[in-house]
Amino acid sequence: MSTTSRIAIDAMGGDGGLPVMIGGAAAALAADPTLRLLLIGDEAGIHAELQRHAALAAAADVRHAPETIASTEKPTLAIRRAKTTSMGLVISAVKSREAAAAVSAGNTGALMAMAKLSLRTMKGIARPALAATLPTLGDNDLVMLDLGANTECDADNLVQFAVMGAAYSRIVLGVDTPRVRLLNIGVEELKGTDEVREAADTLRASPHLPLRFEGFIEADRLGRGEADVIVSDGFTGNIALKSVEGTARFITDLLRRAFTSSFRSKAGFLLSRPAFHMLKTHLDPNNHNGAVFLGLNGIIVKSHGGADIGGVANAISVAAKLARDGITERITADLGAIGHGEGLAK
Amino acid sequence: MSTTSRIAIDAMGGDGGLPVMIGGAAAALAADPTLRLLLIGDEAGIHAELQRHAALAAAADVRHAPETIASTEKPTLAIRRAKTTSMGLVISAVKSREAAAAVSAGNTGALMAMAKLSLRTMKGIARPALAATLPTLGDNDLVMLDLGANTECDADNLVQFAVMGAAYSRIVLGVDTPRVRLLNIGVEELKGTDEVREAADTLRASPHLPLRFEGFIEADRLGRGEADVIVSDGFTGNIALKSVEGTARFITDLLRRAFTSSFRSKAGFLLSRPAFHMLKTHLDPNNHNGAVFLGLNGIIVKSHGGADIGGVANAISVAAKLARDGITERITADLGAIGHGEGLAK
Repeated sequence: MSTTSRIAIDAMGGDGGLPVMIGGAAAALAADPTLRLLLIGDEAGIHAELQRHAALAAAADVRHAPETIASTEKPTLAIRRAKTTSMGLVISAVKSREAAAAVSAGNTGALMAMAKLSLRTMKGIARPALAATLPTLGDNDLVMLDLGANTECDADNLVQFAVMGAAYSRIVLGVDTPRVRLLNIGVEELKGTDEVREAADTLRASPHLPLRFEGFIEADRLGRGEADVIVSDGFTGNIALKSVEGTARFITDLLRRAFTSSFRSKAGFLLSRPAFHMLKTHLDPNNHNGAVFLGLNGIIVKSHGGADIGGVANAISVAAKLARDGITERITADLGAIGHGEGLAK
Repeated sequence: MSTTSRIAIDAMGGDGGLPVMIGGAAAALAADPTLRLLLIGDEAGIHAELQRHAALAAAADVRHAPETIASTEKPTLAIRRAKTTSMGLVISAVKSREAAAAVSAGNTGALMAMAKLSLRTMKGIARPALAATLPTLGDNDLVMLDLGANTECDADNLVQFAVMGAAYSRIVLGVDTPRVRLLNIGVEELKGTDEVREAADTLRASPHLPLRFEGFIEADRLGRGEADVIVSDGFTGNIALKSVEGTARFITDLLRRAFTSSFRSKAGFLLSRPAFHMLKTHLDPNNHNGAVFLGLNGIIVKSHGGADIGGVANAISVAAKLARDGITERITADLGAIGHGEGLAK
């Protein structure tokens, strides 16, 4: 079994618990039979779930972790339990190269703190950022970061996020020269916080970076295909992403109400069912589940706590693809080519 | 003509120019024939538009303003031209009580700076905030503030916004004890920026305020009817609002694509047209157009720059309702009753 294709799974994180995490691993394996998995958590519970997933039982190793990080646990306390918890042990498996990547649906802050302490950030990167892809009306998916790893960021952090996001877009999505924009409350140069404006000045003055900086973008233009990478601090990015997700759900609920309001509408709904299915597939956050911490020496993917089995499977596929594409090595090379960030204009 | 019901209109602001602003005023008058208007801007242009709106011509006075504030003009420069611009003159009309409220679709930063300088903030309020109502799945509309007046806010600003937002909810929407929440990236007490956490501490320690503080809310729960007032700094609020608006448009576009993808879907669409109409009406930002600067000694309503005639009419109706309801006096009384903000726990 090649360790380079093995993904370590924190079997204990997430709202759905073991059945969803193990079910997600089984679904990911069904979609890609070359996957190998390392399932870490309560050994007895994992083996009980594996009774229902024979193919997964054959493709997975199980490792016991006596403890679990709670979703409300403070990151500063969580990091003391790296050696005994399922979350700590999936990260260790990446560090020791027993696994090519790790997936957890647990406490985001704890995962970030533990991963940063264990794997360290790449040379030239002060802080990792949480990145994910979102659907657009354009030709390519959009990379958004930071989605919540860093509540406050300075201009240098934002510039580093831009470089990492561009590398992600190039490597994973195949966009040659990603168009990068900073999320802001206006497109004029004088808009926004000092940090955002200073980051824009630096990016504008750095034409040698492997990206095309195109200024600011407002939040109502996120999905229009006008940018390949959108950069913000983690507070703002999290607010934007969750506003998008909440609105999509809000509208789905409204549609359901509207289409059951009369017999005629119901008939229309039945006829249009394939169209609705297309819409639902496109919008379902489970189909875009799996955010990665960019900037670490190792691949750590965060699955949404509320993801279903399909969502967990998607996060595992994201982790496997990032490992296959060698994203860590390639971002490191990218940063090296521009002088570990020292090439960024100040 | 009673001046208390007269609304001053900045005829020059907005992307659609004079035809949309004057058309919007005519539409607002058609909906409420008791309205009286003061149209300020290029006199010749206004009179030319009024040729097409006889009823409005009879209900409106026209005042010439030789200059216009550009949408890209810096607020610090704009305030020097208060006496010669349409934006400056609508604010002056409110200050002199020639108008009960003013509506402008121009440069938000300039409008805020000019209005603050001319009208001053209420006692106990350090900064005005831009507030608007949004639809929810619950019984009442939601009041959101600040939507972009203040890029950065401290904890005291946020607490004052909470008190003003609750007054708006009580006075305009009739909610007895508004449920207030702070927008944050998690609901646990330790989440978010220092400002947000400190504001939460103050609100929690102030049970005598005329509102019910219920902690944090995440951006994916905005429209679920779980809060009557949602408070944030202007950067975050603007990002959230525009993410919601952009997603609604994104989904409308996807629906259009989906429903024209096959003959069957098209047939379903035709049958369901009333349902779609209901959805569109509910989501159309024009139906919720008109944000007010709370905390000033006078009513200044900001119409979205991209609003259509119906949207401008809606903003004028909002201004008229706020004037009729005496929102300025009632918020002032509210603040007085709690000791001009000095009653807030520190």
